[in-house]
Amino acid sequence: MNEKLYEGKAKILYPTDDPEILLTVFKDDATAFNAQKRGTIAGKGEINCKISAHLFQMLEGKGIPTHFIDTPAPNQMRVRRVQILPLEVVVRNIAAGSLCKQTGLPEGTILKQPLVEFYYKNDGLGDPLLTRDRLFLLELATPEQVDRLQALSREINVILGNFFNECGITLVDFKLEFGVDNRQKLLLADEISPDTCRLWNQSETDPNRRVLDKDRFRRDLGDVESAYEQVLARVLGVRS
Amino acid sequence: MNEKLYEGKAKILYPTDDPEILLTVFKDDATAFNAQKRGTIAGKGEINCKISAHLFQMLEGKGIPTHFIDTPAPNQMRVRRVQILPLEVVVRNIAAGSLCKQTGLPEGTILKQPLVEFYYKNDGLGDPLLTRDRLFLLELATPEQVDRLQALSREINVILGNFFNECGITLVDFKLEFGVDNRQKLLLADEISPDTCRLWNQSETDPNRRVLDKDRFRRDLGDVESAYEQVLARVLGVRS
Repeated sequence: MNEKLYEGKAKILYPTDDPEILLTVFKDDATAFNAQKRGTIAGKGEINCKISAHLFQMLEGKGIPTHFIDTPAPNQMRVRRVQILPLEVVVRNIAAGSLCKQTGLPEGTILKQPLVEFYYKNDGLGDPLLTRDRLFLLELATPEQVDRLQALSREINVILGNFFNECGITLVDFKLEFGVDNRQKLLLADEISPDTCRLWNQSETDPNRRVLDKDRFRRDLGDVESAYEQVLARVLGVRS
Repeated sequence: MNEKLYEGKAKILYPTDDPEILLTVFKDDATAFNAQKRGTIAGKGEINCKISAHLFQMLEGKGIPTHFIDTPAPNQMRVRRVQILPLEVVVRNIAAGSLCKQTGLPEGTILKQPLVEFYYKNDGLGDPLLTRDRLFLLELATPEQVDRLQALSREINVILGNFFNECGITLVDFKLEFGVDNRQKLLLADEISPDTCRLWNQSETDPNRRVLDKDRFRRDLGDVESAYEQVLARVLGVRS
């Protein structure tokens, strides 16, 4: 394998012989709270790679442009090379996590309409929430890009929400990253997995038992691996 | 004096014989970092009352509706009774304070255009930054109120900026609070003082020496009282 281009918290990026294609290797490493908490979730690399591959293909089939190409190995994904925007786009259907901490809304509050939020992808600053004005002040994206990101993210939310619903899973919220390819086209990038989504099992009502995502790791709820495995099994079991 | 209606960090509110009029008593108490740091600034109550009274009258003269009526004593202000909106409106001309911490912009960066930001006035949550969507999600104000608050705050920024400039002081940023009177009219309320504004002495270039506001207290820069006195003297010295 070539020298790595970049190592993140959950993935490593390698160049390939084609300058427009990169290889992503998904790791079992897990971090939370801006990497203050660290651990390993056995099998996570393969599981998240498979879930992401399935969801990217499903989204592509419904007209969402993504960086996905194929999976040459169970924990490896070939992707189109993009310049990642320094933004995390978070779409929320139900209040959870930092939204609750920052607004006092109780966890589980169903939002009247989905909330699309932008965060500054900057570990040193702790990925702070951005207002539209701050986003432009920092020149993190153009107004046209922000409008396109908003529209794409809402569209993805509808498609993913319906898909997970068929799996018996509620899509509470999720984080997306986007990149710009060499023709300035916006592509959905990064991953879509229990690391980046809050997913609640619809057949459980207990607020701890229903959690099928990284909150099991963040909040030490146990059974992290089996929750990730369950998401994979359900995602692969649905005809998309 | 009547039983107090409400005691805040820097002021106490009393009812008067007229149900539409309240009496504000300005205190010498100073707090910072959501009241984690506490102290006293000798004479602050009188100074801030006098500065606020002068600025409110000046603003009224230029068409800005405020809650100000008069000052029956040096540290007392009679004000129209309003329902305070649970919002802090912060107008920024130069990057400082939390904007720098949250965005990484260096202190002193001149903003291309003034930034008007909304914060949730909620001590328990640490007065978090609000996006427009979060503000409406929490139903803290109506869209019409937000548009009016934006417009009024920008207008106040121009008037105050010009006024302080004539005092040889740069208006870096400031926090405003607004209330709604019994006819649903928005009035500028609270105070405008070195407790609520960042004010830099234009004849000093040293980043610590130029500070004429509560940052002297927050950052233990010393000479807090004389800075506040200097602001009062300059404000009263300008023909408005």
